[in-house]
Amino acid sequence: MEGPAVPSPGARTAHRPLRLEHAELTGGPLRQWQDVNRRVSLPLAVGWLEKAGNLRNLRIAAGEADGEFRGPVYMDSDVHKVLESAAWHLREVPDEALADFAGRTALLLERAQQDDGYLDSHYQVAAPGRRYAQLVDSHELYCAGHLIQAAVAARRSSGDTKLLAVARRFADHLADVFLPGPGPGLDGHPEVETALVELYRVTGEERYLELSAAFVERRGHGLVGRHKHGTMHRQDHLPVRTAPTLTGHAVRGLYLEAGVVDVAVETGDEELLAASVARWEDMTAAKTSLTGGLGSRQVGEVFGERYELPPDLSYNETCASAASIQWSWRLLLATGEARYADLIERTLYNAFSAARSTDGRTYYKGNPLTRRPDHAEAVGDPRCRDEWFFSACCPPAVTRLVASLEHYAATVSEHAGVPTFHLHQYAPMELACPFAGGRLGLRVETDYPWHGRVAITITEAPAGPFALALRIPPWSARTTLETPDGARLDAAPDEHGYAVVSRDWRAGEQLVLHLDLTPRLTVPHPRIDALRGSAAVERGPLVYCFEQADQEEGAEVDDLALPLGVAFEEVEHADLAGVGRTVLLRAAGLALGGAHEAGLPYRTHGGPYAEDSRCRTSVTAVPYFQWDNRGDGAMRVWVPFVSG
Amino acid sequence: MEGPAVPSPGARTAHRPLRLEHAELTGGPLRQWQDVNRRVSLPLAVGWLEKAGNLRNLRIAAGEADGEFRGPVYMDSDVHKVLESAAWHLREVPDEALADFAGRTALLLERAQQDDGYLDSHYQVAAPGRRYAQLVDSHELYCAGHLIQAAVAARRSSGDTKLLAVARRFADHLADVFLPGPGPGLDGHPEVETALVELYRVTGEERYLELSAAFVERRGHGLVGRHKHGTMHRQDHLPVRTAPTLTGHAVRGLYLEAGVVDVAVETGDEELLAASVARWEDMTAAKTSLTGGLGSRQVGEVFGERYELPPDLSYNETCASAASIQWSWRLLLATGEARYADLIERTLYNAFSAARSTDGRTYYKGNPLTRRPDHAEAVGDPRCRDEWFFSACCPPAVTRLVASLEHYAATVSEHAGVPTFHLHQYAPMELACPFAGGRLGLRVETDYPWHGRVAITITEAPAGPFALALRIPPWSARTTLETPDGARLDAAPDEHGYAVVSRDWRAGEQLVLHLDLTPRLTVPHPRIDALRGSAAVERGPLVYCFEQADQEEGAEVDDLALPLGVAFEEVEHADLAGVGRTVLLRAAGLALGGAHEAGLPYRTHGGPYAEDSRCRTSVTAVPYFQWDNRGDGAMRVWVPFVSG
Repeated sequence: MEGPAVPSPGARTAHRPLRLEHAELTGGPLRQWQDVNRRVSLPLAVGWLEKAGNLRNLRIAAGEADGEFRGPVYMDSDVHKVLESAAWHLREVPDEALADFAGRTALLLERAQQDDGYLDSHYQVAAPGRRYAQLVDSHELYCAGHLIQAAVAARRSSGDTKLLAVARRFADHLADVFLPGPGPGLDGHPEVETALVELYRVTGEERYLELSAAFVERRGHGLVGRHKHGTMHRQDHLPVRTAPTLTGHAVRGLYLEAGVVDVAVETGDEELLAASVARWEDMTAAKTSLTGGLGSRQVGEVFGERYELPPDLSYNETCASAASIQWSWRLLLATGEARYADLIERTLYNAFSAARSTDGRTYYKGNPLTRRPDHAEAVGDPRCRDEWFFSACCPPAVTRLVASLEHYAATVSEHAGVPTFHLHQYAPMELACPFAGGRLGLRVETDYPWHGRVAITITEAPAGPFALALRIPPWSARTTLETPDGARLDAAPDEHGYAVVSRDWRAGEQLVLHLDLTPRLTVPHPRIDALRGSAAVERGPLVYCFEQADQEEGAEVDDLALPLGVAFEEVEHADLAGVGRTVLLRAAGLALGGAHEAGLPYRTHGGPYAEDSRCRTSVTAVPYFQWDNRGDGAMRVWVPFVSG
Repeated sequence: MEGPAVPSPGARTAHRPLRLEHAELTGGPLRQWQDVNRRVSLPLAVGWLEKAGNLRNLRIAAGEADGEFRGPVYMDSDVHKVLESAAWHLREVPDEALADFAGRTALLLERAQQDDGYLDSHYQVAAPGRRYAQLVDSHELYCAGHLIQAAVAARRSSGDTKLLAVARRFADHLADVFLPGPGPGLDGHPEVETALVELYRVTGEERYLELSAAFVERRGHGLVGRHKHGTMHRQDHLPVRTAPTLTGHAVRGLYLEAGVVDVAVETGDEELLAASVARWEDMTAAKTSLTGGLGSRQVGEVFGERYELPPDLSYNETCASAASIQWSWRLLLATGEARYADLIERTLYNAFSAARSTDGRTYYKGNPLTRRPDHAEAVGDPRCRDEWFFSACCPPAVTRLVASLEHYAATVSEHAGVPTFHLHQYAPMELACPFAGGRLGLRVETDYPWHGRVAITITEAPAGPFALALRIPPWSARTTLETPDGARLDAAPDEHGYAVVSRDWRAGEQLVLHLDLTPRLTVPHPRIDALRGSAAVERGPLVYCFEQADQEEGAEVDDLALPLGVAFEEVEHADLAGVGRTVLLRAAGLALGGAHEAGLPYRTHGGPYAEDSRCRTSVTAVPYFQWDNRGDGAMRVWVPFVSG
């Protein structure tokens, strides 16, 4: 069993992923998200595919139902994404209902598929004869990509090849149509690029890799076609080898990057990889929300300009968070650098996990960092979670990533000639895999992210020396390691971001990592206008926020401020109502009052009008990923940071 | 000749407007905007009505051309707005081309009008039989409103009644259809309400006032119909008597308020007036940009939440600025309070006039307060001016207001039993009107807004005492008056905001007002997250901005900051290339550099990473209304305000 994004043996990567069965989450939030995913979210999603008409569209395409196509053109993709989610889950525990859904739906897709391999219920039912006629918006290859990923997941997880046969027929058809030349053009929504490389990895069919590489290289030459937002919105304004920054539709841009890295590592193309790395650095430096959220501008669902990172209006689409994790994971494998795992962790524990309610039932599409008390009075933003959407891309983007979370926890490499086992994410886990000519077993015991102690016990060890490499998060101010011989030393990261302990490890030995979870105040870069003069509170990997529910009577979230020198007290809750296990942060803060000059919300500095006022109040913060599980109140991540 | 918004003799208002011929602008920016309006903007607009197909749509409706309807459903309204602009201009100087356009187009509208009075080329050509079937989006009554306003303008300005007859037939038809009861509902875009009151004022036909009052009262009961953004977007969620705040689509909300005040003053309905005043106060306090721009959220073109006033993403539609001036003008007449003229001035000299380029050729639809250096790399916002738009509401909204600017300069009242002449806006002007049983003549000489001296000479005076009331802008820190007897005294405003000088005025006497134009630093209310820690520079009524074109070599606008205690030097230019007459402001400022921690645009406060850096640079600001006439560079109104 393998997970998502598994480079082929010949690929040029620094690290290799584990097989799926080599890691098991045994507790903590990640495991909890997986449990709720399987018990609550997936059954709901399957129900919605029926209610929203996705499955019926396919039945009509298969000639088994009458009626009109319902929903947006990419309705099939939701089916594929739920199938992929089911596939990852079906490897672990038997789930009859889920297996039944997966089996029935694979057969339905098989019956709906046309003789030449084409499969898209919208174009078969609602627009016959319009195949590939308007690729800029048609999502035909986008849907094909998700079908392929679902098929790859089923093959890798449970070995089921029913769907893989459907996907291969479609991919063969795509290769026939698009490989000889640009032909009908390029899909306006990248996704098929990374999917085709995965299909190549599973099948060994070189044409799929060639087709993916062709799609990647053709981008940036105006082949997508005209769109009202321009070629930049569809990442078609510059070739991927030269585009310096991520622009346009965020999810599209991020999906494309996953394909770029996949092609680069499979073909050993260092220039292509470097171009993607440069864009990742630029995005991280100037277009990334503190929560890891990406695509700050709601109009067009696009990356904003550099440093356009407004807390209240930030769009931060849930799909973009998932796509970012998938891109960073590929860069981590390619380069072996911990910074990619750092961003994965930031995104996973904040922007991504906040999208879904604690009970697993409802989702945000956009993930702002502020909700004002009067948010119901304006329109335009998604300001509350919903079970499903007309454009329902986000819920199954969550379920498919959560279903395979353990895949992102560890990798192996030859690090400086020494077989090295890398731990990127910290959670209670059992790990066991062939390693260094023998077999390695590890048990990770930790209460992370609530506490910073991570105990790693060797349960099985190969003969000879090998290294354990532990990612040292940059936010941990003082990190130490307890080695098996009782020493406690500073856990200094190497140039790749890992603390590496190399020795003749024996079963029963333990390495204990102590991460520093002291709450810290974070301030923004001066170019971020919308955050100037504000601070946010973080603790370990968690970004915190101030919700109205936790504040003192009469203290409005919109008035809160933090004084210079503020110190936070940690308040543990085993099961806070609506939220569950958490650590709240409490401090002596301030409430600000403002003066209106001439009726306007501005005043002359040093002028005759009253200055702003301030009074003391206690302030309480809750992890952002747990917000909005206790009613409709105001919320802020960033609050004023004032002297005195 | 009368101007726009002239209450009928029986209306309950504190002030009365002058007749149009009683005021003439003789110089200064307002006069310059009028000149360019007539010479450049209007001929261009007339050309666009032909190029974009508006006139052709009407010809098809009249049975004089073949083809399909082109453009959005409200194409007719652009024709009406250009006709209104032409009407105001045609009173002053003979303009054969403009008169020819107005005459021909009035006849075309007459021929296109249906037998029962209905007139809307979209529904006649593209959707026959769908009349009033979908009022939430159809704009049929919105277009009727603009037709009526054009007809009222032609009647008041040149006495021409051709268009008035067309408008009356349409209004009679509307009264037949909508007066008996809600019937087909309410238009999703208010405008007809204020237009019908104006038509009542011109014709004396009570049914028009009744119909307007009915439309106003019916609002808030769900009669507009379903819209994807909800009833709030169409101001149909709460009755106008109880709605506490302006919400939804900004231009719609503001147009509705003009109608509310018109109905209130004509029917003497104090409760209705008070409700509108309360919303104006709320809007001014929490939803108004420093430039007077309104409707901060581009998604849905709506009012944002309270204190949602982002400089970079603010939409501030040009039409909303014009609508705000029209609403404030009505409230000024109703109440006699200078604060409405204050907001008119702020909007007029900043958000409104910045929309059009200095040469009168191109327009912004949205008016942000920031443009970043990489603005071309994102999509979604209107980041450069254009000659015309597919949805071309804004250009003729500018031309119709500019064509009658002098109308907003002065009013008359009985102030505390004394006949009083109020001056609200300062510009070189000749004023002459029947007054206090005789005739009053005034000459205003000033170099405002570049200099603060305003000399008012009595050129003709009625017998007996009367008062001159001069609006004292709240930004003028030290304002003085020189009276005819040589005294110089503090110009203390009364409770309405005016400095009142009452005496037996004689021809030849002069009153000189000295307004304080010392540049001032303005800071935002602490609830405006997006402006925290920033300051803006203002001088008199002008908001300033920093454009890249004026900065030192190497100093990027995005890095600029102002230190505490910064002092601005005034640099006069008689004709700065591309800009014209202006006063620049120059100071010793700072350039900030930022630190990236872990590659992100955030850092731990007091953490191990480098602090932000700063170095000295000179900074130069230009009036916001003159921005973007010198290339495509970055611009900011608000910049960091830092200690040290």
